[in-house]
Amino acid sequence: MSNPLQPGAVIGILGGGQLGRMLSMAAARLGFVTHIFEPGANPPAGQVAHRVTTASYEDAEALAAFAQSVDVITYEFENIPTEALDVLESHRPIRPGREALRVSQDRLTEKTFLQGLGLNTAPFADVTDLDSLQAAIERIGTPAILKTRRFGYDGKGQARLKSPEDARAALADMQGVPAILEGFVNFSHEVSIIAARGLDGQVACFDPGENVHRDGILHTTTVPARLSPALRTDAVLLAANILNALDYVGVMGVELFVTPQGLIVNEIAPRVHNSGHWTQNGCAVDQFEQHIRAVAGWPLGDGQRHADVVMENLIGDDMDRVPELAQQRDVALHLYGKAEVKPGRKMGHFNRIKR
Amino acid sequence: MSNPLQPGAVIGILGGGQLGRMLSMAAARLGFVTHIFEPGANPPAGQVAHRVTTASYEDAEALAAFAQSVDVITYEFENIPTEALDVLESHRPIRPGREALRVSQDRLTEKTFLQGLGLNTAPFADVTDLDSLQAAIERIGTPAILKTRRFGYDGKGQARLKSPEDARAALADMQGVPAILEGFVNFSHEVSIIAARGLDGQVACFDPGENVHRDGILHTTTVPARLSPALRTDAVLLAANILNALDYVGVMGVELFVTPQGLIVNEIAPRVHNSGHWTQNGCAVDQFEQHIRAVAGWPLGDGQRHADVVMENLIGDDMDRVPELAQQRDVALHLYGKAEVKPGRKMGHFNRIKR
Repeated sequence: MSNPLQPGAVIGILGGGQLGRMLSMAAARLGFVTHIFEPGANPPAGQVAHRVTTASYEDAEALAAFAQSVDVITYEFENIPTEALDVLESHRPIRPGREALRVSQDRLTEKTFLQGLGLNTAPFADVTDLDSLQAAIERIGTPAILKTRRFGYDGKGQARLKSPEDARAALADMQGVPAILEGFVNFSHEVSIIAARGLDGQVACFDPGENVHRDGILHTTTVPARLSPALRTDAVLLAANILNALDYVGVMGVELFVTPQGLIVNEIAPRVHNSGHWTQNGCAVDQFEQHIRAVAGWPLGDGQRHADVVMENLIGDDMDRVPELAQQRDVALHLYGKAEVKPGRKMGHFNRIKR
Repeated sequence: MSNPLQPGAVIGILGGGQLGRMLSMAAARLGFVTHIFEPGANPPAGQVAHRVTTASYEDAEALAAFAQSVDVITYEFENIPTEALDVLESHRPIRPGREALRVSQDRLTEKTFLQGLGLNTAPFADVTDLDSLQAAIERIGTPAILKTRRFGYDGKGQARLKSPEDARAALADMQGVPAILEGFVNFSHEVSIIAARGLDGQVACFDPGENVHRDGILHTTTVPARLSPALRTDAVLLAANILNALDYVGVMGVELFVTPQGLIVNEIAPRVHNSGHWTQNGCAVDQFEQHIRAVAGWPLGDGQRHADVVMENLIGDDMDRVPELAQQRDVALHLYGKAEVKPGRKMGHFNRIKR
């Protein structure tokens, strides 16, 4: 391993939400200290980090000072402004690298990239105006879903088209930003695979988890997923294919639809992923530590599972369930230290451990 | 449960070493923030805590300000000066309470307390001078071990007596402080039980672990321990007996010698304990979270184990083993973020998980 970071090294994390928080604790377990960069005040990750910089992604001076104070830079979300990345990268390595961000920041680029690797995706088309939307509907059909190309998450920036007549209203929902029309896929269930690639090109995957969403937000991930041995192998191979193509370093979440014709890639996230939280209580090395190991140039954990787990998110008022959940013997709680409960806000999750 | 602390509450921790550090991360998992009080600069716990006060235990003003900034106070070590406790307790509850500290701060008080509960200990005698030491040797015999009554840990402040002729030299080693002579116990192995008692009196124990020491420092803990079902029950009952007698709130480590005549209590520690680190990778609720739950007035985890574990400490130069350990598939690393490696210094540990 070439130049792995030594304990005591500083890992810079862009973003101070729950993913940055759990990355920070994982880094601490390996003896690293963390420095969080986050525009918002009092970020959840700041409660467990050594240092926090509160500044905007437009503040080049703050970005440079942050970068100079750390040994390597990683991130908890993919929508980091390009200009900020330029400043940061002139000082320290960013892992995962720019290509992964470029591809995953734009749904059209991402799907084009995936198809270029020979992977199956939902049918899709670039939408810039009503004419191109109508042409897309003609080719893809309805029902379909119109999504902004950039900055979408948890079902935001999306409009469903039940029939071609919904075109105008859906386009209005996009508020003039570039969009992509995606055809519906007839899938039996969704799984995701959390894959990692080390600085030396080593790849390790956790067991696929089966995801259930509610209101566009992940509700539960169950491991093991319902998946034939053949499809399980397919999932691992396609994840490795994606990681290698991007010369990727770190953990990636790959969401897959299971269909009678095989796996279809829904989307990729170049970071630790909500559907990988089960690893905290099912694996010796969880997805957060795996990511830190990768960006630090350490060997990866092999992803083996020592327990079956069901992860469930605690969204908004689900926090009221905490006292009762705390009494359940097989439940491991992970709360995010967010001061304010809001509808749709991810407040925590719990892992139910099956022996 | 009466008035459990709500997520967002502040837990004050006296001591910023590795135990405070792991308590801090466990508190974060439950949505609490932590404030560390520690005289030494740059404490390991400070890297993962929300706030650190660097001040001496003689600084009444700093102690009062610390206490007023938190909701409850706990600690990672038992040798907290009484005067500091007086200041702290006038502002906020200290858990575990004063009685547990009084008993465990003094080996003579502790052994007398244990015998008062009808529990077996090694034979012991109060030693104040050469006369009382010689009388003690006459009653207890040699080999025996002379220990300072207070402030001993990891084999420090101890002198072995192979024969009565060693009396004078052993006493000199005590440097004039009150001491206790303990007879040797003919035991086959040592186990410890990590027990917890909630604010409501609920008691929960983790499975006993089997301890091996090297140079007076814990080397490994293996779970499950070699222990008959009858002795396992004895261990749980005697731990509950101790906790109830102290009206204890929190986690306690109880070290036990296994002999043909049954269990003998070696010593108790009113805090999370090195021999309970295995729970981090074997239980849904580990000893650190269990302690935080207790002091926060939450329900306890039930201590059930979902994996067998061998914990091994990384002492001093053992840190050189980290790159190789990081490549082993069943190893979970826990490093303490200590800047300097010193001989005998606890730098980290790892849990080897057996499926």
